Amino acid sequence: MGSFMIRTDLALEARESVEEGAGALRGVSVEEYCKKQSEIKVTKVTIENKNSAKTLGKPVGTYITIEAPALSFPDAEYHAEISDELAIWLKRLLPENKEDLSVLVVGLGNRDVTADALGPRVVDNLVITRHILLEFGKAAYQEKENVPMISGLIPGVMAKTGMESAEIIKGVAEKTKPDVVFVVDALAARSTKRLNRTIQITDTGIHPGSGVGNHRNAVTKESLGIPVIAIGVPTVVDAATIVTDALGKLLGNASRELVELREQLQMQSGEFYNMYVTGKDVDYEVKQISHMICDAIHKALEV
Amino acid sequence: MGSFMIRTDLALEARESVEEGAGALRGVSVEEYCKKQSEIKVTKVTIENKNSAKTLGKPVGTYITIEAPALSFPDAEYHAEISDELAIWLKRLLPENKEDLSVLVVGLGNRDVTADALGPRVVDNLVITRHILLEFGKAAYQEKENVPMISGLIPGVMAKTGMESAEIIKGVAEKTKPDVVFVVDALAARSTKRLNRTIQITDTGIHPGSGVGNHRNAVTKESLGIPVIAIGVPTVVDAATIVTDALGKLLGNASRELVELREQLQMQSGEFYNMYVTGKDVDYEVKQISHMICDAIHKALEV
Amino acid sequence: MGSFMIRTDLALEARESVEEGAGALRGVSVEEYCKKQSEIKVTKVTIENKNSAKTLGKPVGTYITIEAPALSFPDAEYHAEISDELAIWLKRLLPENKEDLSVLVVGLGNRDVTADALGPRVVDNLVITRHILLEFGKAAYQEKENVPMISGLIPGVMAKTGMESAEIIKGVAEKTKPDVVFVVDALAARSTKRLNRTIQITDTGIHPGSGVGNHRNAVTKESLGIPVIAIGVPTVVDAATIVTDALGKLLGNASRELVELREQLQMQSGEFYNMYVTGKDVDYEVKQISHMICDAIHKALEV
Amino acid sequence: MGSFMIRTDLALEARESVEEGAGALRGVSVEEYCKKQSEIKVTKVTIENKNSAKTLGKPVGTYITIEAPALSFPDAEYHAEISDELAIWLKRLLPENKEDLSVLVVGLGNRDVTADALGPRVVDNLVITRHILLEFGKAAYQEKENVPMISGLIPGVMAKTGMESAEIIKGVAEKTKPDVVFVVDALAARSTKRLNRTIQITDTGIHPGSGVGNHRNAVTKESLGIPVIAIGVPTVVDAATIVTDALGKLLGNASRELVELREQLQMQSGEFYNMYVTGKDVDYEVKQISHMICDAIHKALEV
Repeated sequence: MGSFMIRTDLALEARESVEEGAGALRGVSVEEYCKKQSEIKVTKVTIENKNSAKTLGKPVGTYITIEAPALSFPDAEYHAEISDELAIWLKRLLPENKEDLSVLVVGLGNRDVTADALGPRVVDNLVITRHILLEFGKAAYQEKENVPMISGLIPGVMAKTGMESAEIIKGVAEKTKPDVVFVVDALAARSTKRLNRTIQITDTGIHPGSGVGNHRNAVTKESLGIPVIAIGVPTVVDAATIVTDALGKLLGNASRELVELREQLQMQSGEFYNMYVTGKDVDYEVKQISHMICDAIHKALEV
Repeated sequence: MGSFMIRTDLALEARESVEEGAGALRGVSVEEYCKKQSEIKVTKVTIENKNSAKTLGKPVGTYITIEAPALSFPDAEYHAEISDELAIWLKRLLPENKEDLSVLVVGLGNRDVTADALGPRVVDNLVITRHILLEFGKAAYQEKENVPMISGLIPGVMAKTGMESAEIIKGVAEKTKPDVVFVVDALAARSTKRLNRTIQITDTGIHPGSGVGNHRNAVTKESLGIPVIAIGVPTVVDAATIVTDALGKLLGNASRELVELREQLQMQSGEFYNMYVTGKDVDYEVKQISHMICDAIHKALEV
Repeated sequence: MGSFMIRTDLALEARESVEEGAGALRGVSVEEYCKKQSEIKVTKVTIENKNSAKTLGKPVGTYITIEAPALSFPDAEYHAEISDELAIWLKRLLPENKEDLSVLVVGLGNRDVTADALGPRVVDNLVITRHILLEFGKAAYQEKENVPMISGLIPGVMAKTGMESAEIIKGVAEKTKPDVVFVVDALAARSTKRLNRTIQITDTGIHPGSGVGNHRNAVTKESLGIPVIAIGVPTVVDAATIVTDALGKLLGNASRELVELREQLQMQSGEFYNMYVTGKDVDYEVKQISHMICDAIHKALEV
Repeated sequence: MGSFMIRTDLALEARESVEEGAGALRGVSVEEYCKKQSEIKVTKVTIENKNSAKTLGKPVGTYITIEAPALSFPDAEYHAEISDELAIWLKRLLPENKEDLSVLVVGLGNRDVTADALGPRVVDNLVITRHILLEFGKAAYQEKENVPMISGLIPGVMAKTGMESAEIIKGVAEKTKPDVVFVVDALAARSTKRLNRTIQITDTGIHPGSGVGNHRNAVTKESLGIPVIAIGVPTVVDAATIVTDALGKLLGNASRELVELREQLQMQSGEFYNMYVTGKDVDYEVKQISHMICDAIHKALEV
């Protein structure tokens, strides 16, 4: 990716930023689906091998991005459409032919920082069934054939716990033995246009150092021994990224001037360290989207 | 304890209620200390064997109760006195001669229910050091000889997680290996006069079925393999208890009428099932007390 | 009502408690409607004159009580039925033939005390239109004929503002000139069986000294010059009331013993002063009910 | 300020940005005070007439800026020093020789958006006395000679109330008749370096269109008839500003290139519309600073 780092959690954006200069990438397959009426666009990026993983700075695996321009608007019907779509793709990542699936849903992030509260808010609204199934069995849900066993965990951020989220999740997963872990988190995008309008789901879990800059240890199928499905929505853009991208637009990405300016900026960007950009309606938007993701999880698990 | 259950988390009250009828108990030692000026009263109840444990419905161990009538008043100096006193007793329960103690502080309860938010609020205000010590070592605190390694966990309540607090705490303790666990929780008292005016600390940990009625599994030295110190403040009284106690006062505890009335009440008490009594200032009081406990933990650990 | 005060905000209960001894009351008309399938029961109590007002301790006016046993259960369809019913009755209290009604919805109570947070939570979830209509006119809602002008106010409690809610509401109403004021508040009931299962609406507004014991000045048609519709749900029972009522059940309400006991209790009830009884699921229930009331307001105003 | 708008709420920054090109301004007097030990720097900017007001885009009046580099660090002693300094300057803006001053403290902003929650959090922590003084008189504070009458108001943001903050404040001030109004608000700065490190107080009140872009009507001595003292801390930077400023640094502020780029950017900046930059620790920092401002208000009023 050259001499400077594009800060994005979206595989979609990582690919775009690489292809801008280099053309189509080997080892990366891309499928796109558009729903004209709802303006929902689904992109499935598969990073197939270690080479392409290195180029994109994302691990090998499947990344599904659902772009829905009106995601944060208050339109209940439209939200139902998006959560239907999200549920379809979540289901494809779930273990097959598994009845009575046991799922631990983890909400990462800091509930006291609006742009980082997506994960905790999704778990807040979830239908939790594990304790009821363990105490009363399926009798408590007698009409239903399939009753997923859902538990929820909000580990909190390292500054407030002193522990990596990964340590907490691993410890809890070992004791409670779910079949699969969902991890919901707020992401960083490269473009403000994607904020609160895009959902990414991936079977690659959560990786340290990616994302908003919190060095979390990995939460993956390798580290936990069970599938980990990450669900993320970009709610912030890194402040340094926004400045370099604005420059790129003005000067042309390939220009020598830009390269020089970027280097200078990099040097001066202490000012932007630990700074991020977010929208003024982030409060309302995170609330809307957390409900939508919650609905999609319920639909995917057939609660 | 006879045919009906006195609902209290305080060993002090359990002892009182038994001794009302029966006189001093074997296998229970009691020491009292009074600080006239500050009106702080400390009672140390030691339950010495299985017999007395059975009689009182509390496990063998040490229970220290600090009664401070003005605990919930907004008097900073007085709060400092109480937190000094609490720190002294906490220190006596800590492992001796241990430098650089590693402590996991767990805040039990539901942060969205005011009377149950004590634990989460204490952890919210704690100075967390573990992640800094692990990344930078003592260099980050260079003037200090002793730097305790503090981590904090707010597991959430079973209705919202689907998991026992004990499962979460055990999983996290196994991964992060603290030397000792502090568990902070809101308790149920028998008398409204003790609400928000009493602190109990004990080396017996947390036991299922005691307290506000949430059946939690045990979090104890036996179950975790490390000392567990519980810090609790009664913020509620069980509604059924308050009615039977009021009857007792009116009719005399020993009267035949009372026994009959109690039985009837027991039968009718579906109305009081899952109901509790709390004070109108519980919001303000829990805030004050959580800060005081937080200070006491900091003092005991010499942060 | 004799020498002691039955603490209830529900006209329904005030009437029951008076009629227990005295038979049907003059100057009070009662109509009842039952919906068998949904188990919703509507009672309309009209206090017709000053005499009956004095007897019941409630001002002259109309009190509609909707009892729905499953109000706090998580059943979306059932909630829609209740909010439909509530909307019908709210509409009957609204000024007739008024297009483009301007409504100020006030959420009384303390958002930091779960049992008192109903009012603030309803306003949190409301669709607010006033600022949009004032800036863009009906153009912003172009398909609609009727667009109500909705504003929302959460004045906070006197201990945190130093001001009566009535002062704040009057000041704001004079500046913003709504056609009608809705006031949503948590109430005190006499029986725990009514907690979170009953909704009362009334055209009498809010009166000082009634309710949970906060002496608020009146917010009424007389004091504001515009109709004031109060919407309330009992979330607490006064602790002293619960004890006297339990005694009444055991001893018979008419017994001499009870009268004596009540007097004694009154004398001893400093212990219960400022104490209230609430349920362990108050957090979940208040959330459910606040959404239902919000829906009903939207339906009544045809948002 | 030329053809484009520098978005800042700080008179200090407005002056800097004008003087960059133009040298010292007429009609603006500046005094600076430095405290070497504590690294606290105080700048008093007086905008003396309409001309200089127009040039700076700020109304005539006094603006005191306290810069404290460690404002957001957890150092209790240092915080006491800053709140002492802030209290001194607040006192100078208060009406003189007034005993038993009656003060309404208004916390502007949205408590659900971390960077905008400063105002509400200050009011949350304030010692409120008005209702006690009105009910019990000075008897309730018997040792004290001077007891200020403090009330607090959190009006909420227009998107959630449908009303201008100014309408609410005016209505409440007319009913409760304070001698002076304090308005606490989160501000927008031009430079990320000032975020959470600077406090501005001014006797000019709050003006529509300045600040984070919420068009609020004015809250001033003229509009209320009583002095209005605004206390603000910059917690965000406008995203468009950050990009143009970064360009300025790279290209030189006077260059023709920059002028062109700015114009282009302006045109493209729809992307940055309603976007702001804030720091990752905004949660912790706003908490610290709100306590410090609360202390300063208490000290200035001698509570």
